Amino acid sequence: MFTTNRVQAAPVKVCRERLRGRRAMAVVINSGSANACTGRQGMADAKRMARLAAVALGVPEAAVFPCSTGTIGKPLPMDRIARGVPQAAAALSEEGGEAAARAIMTTDTAPKQAAVEVRIDGRPVRIGGMAKGAGMIEPNMATLLAFLTTDATVEPRALRTCLRGAVGESFNRISVDGDTSTNDTVLFLANGLAGNRALSPAHREWKPFCAAVREVSRLLAMKIVDDGEGATKFVVVTVKGARTGPDARRAARAVARSLLVKTSWYGGDPNWGRVIAAVGYSGAAVEAERIEIRFNGKLAVQGGRKAPRFALKELERILKQRAFSITIDLHLGRGTDTVYTCDCSEEYVRINSAYLT
Amino acid sequence: MFTTNRVQAAPVKVCRERLRGRRAMAVVINSGSANACTGRQGMADAKRMARLAAVALGVPEAAVFPCSTGTIGKPLPMDRIARGVPQAAAALSEEGGEAAARAIMTTDTAPKQAAVEVRIDGRPVRIGGMAKGAGMIEPNMATLLAFLTTDATVEPRALRTCLRGAVGESFNRISVDGDTSTNDTVLFLANGLAGNRALSPAHREWKPFCAAVREVSRLLAMKIVDDGEGATKFVVVTVKGARTGPDARRAARAVARSLLVKTSWYGGDPNWGRVIAAVGYSGAAVEAERIEIRFNGKLAVQGGRKAPRFALKELERILKQRAFSITIDLHLGRGTDTVYTCDCSEEYVRINSAYLT
Repeated sequence: MFTTNRVQAAPVKVCRERLRGRRAMAVVINSGSANACTGRQGMADAKRMARLAAVALGVPEAAVFPCSTGTIGKPLPMDRIARGVPQAAAALSEEGGEAAARAIMTTDTAPKQAAVEVRIDGRPVRIGGMAKGAGMIEPNMATLLAFLTTDATVEPRALRTCLRGAVGESFNRISVDGDTSTNDTVLFLANGLAGNRALSPAHREWKPFCAAVREVSRLLAMKIVDDGEGATKFVVVTVKGARTGPDARRAARAVARSLLVKTSWYGGDPNWGRVIAAVGYSGAAVEAERIEIRFNGKLAVQGGRKAPRFALKELERILKQRAFSITIDLHLGRGTDTVYTCDCSEEYVRINSAYLT
Repeated sequence: MFTTNRVQAAPVKVCRERLRGRRAMAVVINSGSANACTGRQGMADAKRMARLAAVALGVPEAAVFPCSTGTIGKPLPMDRIARGVPQAAAALSEEGGEAAARAIMTTDTAPKQAAVEVRIDGRPVRIGGMAKGAGMIEPNMATLLAFLTTDATVEPRALRTCLRGAVGESFNRISVDGDTSTNDTVLFLANGLAGNRALSPAHREWKPFCAAVREVSRLLAMKIVDDGEGATKFVVVTVKGARTGPDARRAARAVARSLLVKTSWYGGDPNWGRVIAAVGYSGAAVEAERIEIRFNGKLAVQGGRKAPRFALKELERILKQRAFSITIDLHLGRGTDTVYTCDCSEEYVRINSAYLT
């Protein structure tokens, strides 16, 4: 799955093309340059990077998927890549996951990995993943590269269905700064080594398999938000009682994106007024005098105004925590949605004003 | 004209109602509490504030328009308002404009006024205005209170048409942080003292009159952006060559709202990659390899990639200025639009994380 940005990096275009072949055997990833807005040279470079990996690994070139993350408009340093790819291939090892997860970081402060094991046809099947995030993070998707692998045997089409469902509930539900990148890519590779019967929706253990994929995706997505650029808080925004599901989504995203809401969280302030204002301009149907807001379940707003027993001290204590939830009930219907996000700190501004072209 | 937020402050509701009468004789404004999300008490308070002014001035209550700006959810301090309104009424003077413009400030650092004089029917006609802005500033409209007055005689319906046009080119074209407030209000009052023939589109000097109103609105809108919370740069974002006008608008707004773009301006970085990314996710039709970007007319991006003669030093010099322009040509059609905005600094975060409930 790829970014919805209409400006797409060269490696995204190459991956899209190669997906048609449906056979992926390797990924080759660089951080530092996004290889986006680099014209024909960028396309040639992305393909050459993949070819270098194909040669080093002895696999078909079309089965290698190149991915890049970093500054837009900066050409790939092809001399370093030409030297580095064979070295990286020579260093491949079963213990290399951590090093790979670390190598793809940009402004991330920690590598992000997750793994789950389930039994399919009585055999252990593993799903593992790594991701990088930090900035330009917004649903559909995020500056996000994520790589999932499994040793299960899965039909290619079923694999895609399973991934789409998992991404919808994880990477498409996180927001750091509202900017959608040119490079977002989530790849899911299956090698069949577990020896199970091929998984598809017809398999009786399809559901537990998909649940495990969702879990790995969710864990990685949470790690991305938790390590958002400059983030000091992890916040779960849930909207319920919306007239429709899409309305709930609009409202939750508006709250998660609002700079004024995010800076109030940074200040540890239970500022519900900014939350209501964001819901109000989200485009969702709203009746102001029905809105109810809770922080970690503690009532702050009822009937669209400060709750009669508004416990400022207790709410402040909640807002000072590293992680908390906000639940907004619009009391208009059954639509519900959740977005995972973080606050916006001076550090975010510092990082992004210093991360130069 | 009022906010498009679905959650509207009590004074906005009262003003809307009173507009039907089409007769405004006074405004009464407070800063510190927005009187939004304050329920029935808020409505009663807004009306009482207007009544106090009506009594003090000896005008009909329905001709007094109450406005509020400040923290959402905080009830008006009615005892102080009851004492203050008669005092403010007693202090009314032809020289009081500056004091009024200062009194309505919240996080604004300076009062905002503008005035223009034109001749209509051979007589001097004046249009003056004051505004407050600073945060929660986004097209349609902004946390913005703006008050325009003129001594011209203008038909009420014509006055509204004229105001709508002026707001469309001024207050609806500015963005500070992308948050739309619950209190935005622009009022325009005419008292007819200039003694001209009643202005309407049929009047041969209708156009110069409207141009003057636009100019006052534009001046006030520019002052609001220039004094955006924590702003260190004033930036004019123009998109041209879009397939349609609305596409140009979408693209210009996405650039003006992008936190990553705004922080790069703060850093004085000619980061065109983030500008392209924002255009790409704006929803506007885009062909990446046609995009052209200029800073103060200086070419930075051509054919969707770094221009062959990309003069980094010169671009950096431009980006270090207090004010500069970015022109993005999509080379797809004739749609064009402009948004006035500012950067996002650590100071913005500091102000908004400390401005407590």
